[in-house]
Amino acid sequence: MSEPRLTLEDVRKAHARIRPFIHRTPIMTSASLDELAGARLFFKCENFQRIGAFKARGAHNAVFSLTDAEAARGVVTHSSGNHGAAVALAARNRGIPAYVVIPRNAAEVKKASVARLGAAVTLCEPTLESREAEARRLIAETGALFVHPYDDLRVIAGQGTSALEMLEDQPELEALVCPVGGGGQLAGIAVAAKGLRPGVLIVGAEPAQADDASRSFRAGRIVPAGNPQTIADGLRSSLGESSFALIRAHVDEILTASEEAIIDAMRLVFERLKIVIEPSAAVALAVVLDRASPLRGRRVGVVLSGGNVDLERLPWMMR
Amino acid sequence: MSEPRLTLEDVRKAHARIRPFIHRTPIMTSASLDELAGARLFFKCENFQRIGAFKARGAHNAVFSLTDAEAARGVVTHSSGNHGAAVALAARNRGIPAYVVIPRNAAEVKKASVARLGAAVTLCEPTLESREAEARRLIAETGALFVHPYDDLRVIAGQGTSALEMLEDQPELEALVCPVGGGGQLAGIAVAAKGLRPGVLIVGAEPAQADDASRSFRAGRIVPAGNPQTIADGLRSSLGESSFALIRAHVDEILTASEEAIIDAMRLVFERLKIVIEPSAAVALAVVLDRASPLRGRRVGVVLSGGNVDLERLPWMMR
Repeated sequence: MSEPRLTLEDVRKAHARIRPFIHRTPIMTSASLDELAGARLFFKCENFQRIGAFKARGAHNAVFSLTDAEAARGVVTHSSGNHGAAVALAARNRGIPAYVVIPRNAAEVKKASVARLGAAVTLCEPTLESREAEARRLIAETGALFVHPYDDLRVIAGQGTSALEMLEDQPELEALVCPVGGGGQLAGIAVAAKGLRPGVLIVGAEPAQADDASRSFRAGRIVPAGNPQTIADGLRSSLGESSFALIRAHVDEILTASEEAIIDAMRLVFERLKIVIEPSAAVALAVVLDRASPLRGRRVGVVLSGGNVDLERLPWMMR
Repeated sequence: MSEPRLTLEDVRKAHARIRPFIHRTPIMTSASLDELAGARLFFKCENFQRIGAFKARGAHNAVFSLTDAEAARGVVTHSSGNHGAAVALAARNRGIPAYVVIPRNAAEVKKASVARLGAAVTLCEPTLESREAEARRLIAETGALFVHPYDDLRVIAGQGTSALEMLEDQPELEALVCPVGGGGQLAGIAVAAKGLRPGVLIVGAEPAQADDASRSFRAGRIVPAGNPQTIADGLRSSLGESSFALIRAHVDEILTASEEAIIDAMRLVFERLKIVIEPSAAVALAVVLDRASPLRGRRVGVVLSGGNVDLERLPWMMR
C-alpha cells in the first residue's frame, strides 16, 4: 500500500481555511489528574469545539475545499452523529444543502443537533451496509457529493489542525494521545505533529472491546472491527484505507483500555476538570492512567475529542 | 443599621493578596444560550476555581489577612462544604492547621475534598446551632480563629474579586447576576462592580423555595431562612449582618427561580457549555432564562459559582 500524500503543509492550509468557522479550543490542566497519571497532562478541550466535537475541523475543511460548482450540489454523509452535525454546520456555513444518514441507535442528543443545524436527516439500520446504501441513494437522488467521516484526505487534514494548536500552545509536549475509531483524527494529528516535531510520540487510544486499530497496526493490514460492543460509541468504526496508511507511517503505538477504565476516566474528567465529555473522549485519558502506560513521566497532550453525551444515561450510573 | 466599611479598594487589595493562590477563571459564551435568554451572556466559570468554587477567593483573603501570630493558631470554620474546602486549601497554602465542621448531610464529594486538603473534619447535625456549637468547641480546644463562611468583611472582599476580573475581561457588561445564600459573594461583587461602574445592574438569584434574601431585601431587615428545602444546597443559609447591609446599599434586585427552572438551567449548562456546575450555580442562569426577566436584551455576566456536584445523583435524573 503506498502512503497517501498528506503533509504538514496540507494541515496548515486546512487550518487557514477553517479558522473562521471553528473555535481555537483551550488546553486545561489538573494537578490532581497529573498526580494520578504520574505525568504532566495537557487536555485539548475539543468538547468545547463547534458542535461539541473535533469533527467540526475535518468537515469544514472538506466542505470549504469544494469548488463553487461542486458545493452547489450539496453534501451527503453518514455518521453515528458528531461528523453528521459537523457536516451539517459546515454546509450551513457555506450556504449549501446537507443530507445526513444516522443509525437509529445513535444518541438522541446527536440526532437532534444534526436536525437543529438544518440538515435533512435520514435514519438507517446500525450497520455499515445500511449507512452506505442510504448514502448512495441520497447521492443518486440529489447529485450531492459524499464527505466520508474519516477516509478522506481533506477530512484527515482538518482533524490534524488541533495538533498545530496544541504544539503552538505547549511547545514542550513530548507525546500526543488521541482516540482512534476510523482513524481520521489520529492520522491527521500524526501527520501534523511529526511534521512539526519528528521526536514527539504519537499514541492512539481505543477500547479493548473495539481493538481493531491495535490489531491492524500490529498485523500491518486492516482488520475489520466487526460489530464491537463498547460504550465509546464514536470508536466502533473500522479503520479507513487512507487513515490506516498514514497511521502506519507516523504513529508510534496504539494502546487499549477496558470499559471500566474508560468509565472511570470519564467520571474523573467530570469531577476534576469540571467538564462534560463523551465516552469516546475518555479513552485517551484511560490509556494514560494505566499503571503500565509508557507515557508516565512525560508531558502529554490528551485530546478530549468531544462532549456530546446522553446526560440521562451517564455510564457510571449504569454499572 | 450602619453600612459596614467595605470599598472597591478593599476588593482590589484582596485581589492582589490572593492572586498567587487562585485561578483567574475564564469567561465562556454560548450562542444557543444567548438565543434562549434573549440576552448576551458571559459565564464566569468559578466551577474551574481552586476547590471547584468561588469560595477559594474569600477564604484565601481571610487567611492571608491574618498576622503571623494569629495565623499560627490555625483556623476554624463550619460549612456545607465549599467554604470548608476553601479554608482547608488556604490554610494549607499558608502552612497552618484548619478545623472544618461539616453537616452530616452534605454531599460526599464535598466532605472528601476537605479531608483531602489536610483539614481536620468534624461532622455535625445539619442545623446552624449544631454547626456553631461544634465550631465554638474547636475554638476553645485549639485556640484557632474563626473564619465565617460569609459574614466577614475579609471573606466578602475576597468573593468580590471575580467582579474585577469580569469587568476587566468584558468592560461592556451591563448587569451581573450571582446566586445568594449567605450573601457574601453578592455583597462583594456589588461593592466591587458598583465601585468600578456605578451604572451596572447587580442582581442576586435565589431559589424560590429559599427566598429569605428576597424577602429580607423587600422587608429591609433580615428574615431568617428557616430550614428551606431546595436542591441548591449552597443557598440554604440566612443572610449575614454585614452582607445584608452591603446588599441593601449596592444591589438592585433579587430574583427567584423555581426548582424546575434551576434543574433545567443546570442541565442546559452541561449540554450547551459542556461544563459541570452544581445546582447553586445554576440559579443565576435560571433567573436570566425567566421569560419575565428584566435582563433580556442586555449584556449580562452570569456567575457560575461552583462545580462540586454529586455525580451519582444529577438532579434531572431524580425527577
